[in-house]
Amino acid sequence: MPRVHIDVMLKEEILDPAGQAIERALPKLGFDGVTGVRVGKHIVVDLASGDDLDARVEEMAGKLLANPVIETFRWHVEE
Amino acid sequence: MPRVHIDVMLKEEILDPAGQAIERALPKLGFDGVTGVRVGKHIVVDLASGDDLDARVEEMAGKLLANPVIETFRWHVEE
Repeated sequence: MPRVHIDVMLKEEILDPAGQAIERALPKLGFDGVTGVRVGKHIVVDLASGDDLDARVEEMAGKLLANPVIETFRWHVEE
Repeated sequence: MPRVHIDVMLKEEILDPAGQAIERALPKLGFDGVTGVRVGKHIVVDLASGDDLDARVEEMAGKLLANPVIETFRWHVEE
């Protein structure tokens, strides 16, 4: 049974307050040299295999897991 | 400048209500055959390169980005 990993991120042009908060916190904790942080979702889905796996994952991610107005997604099947 | 991708997930034994909600919603939307969903965070960090990159990322993720009591993390540097 395939395990699919889907990363859902805010589009580059959308403000990401969580990422900014982490970016500001890191130097105060001694982590220098960080120039950018973005925070999104990582969703792991176990689903039945089949020839239409790609189509199913694209539809699932595009319709339910990501908001296409403000988010993009990438996915891969775990080896 | 390396781009590091960090996935922070709840430990397997920790209840994941967000994942359960998605798992219950999928069949109602016509997606059958899903046997498990877990939701975590995907954090993308741009940071200065250096020999100590691995150590810095491990410390950053283990101390700030993940809560080691209930979460685990995995990371990789973008090719």
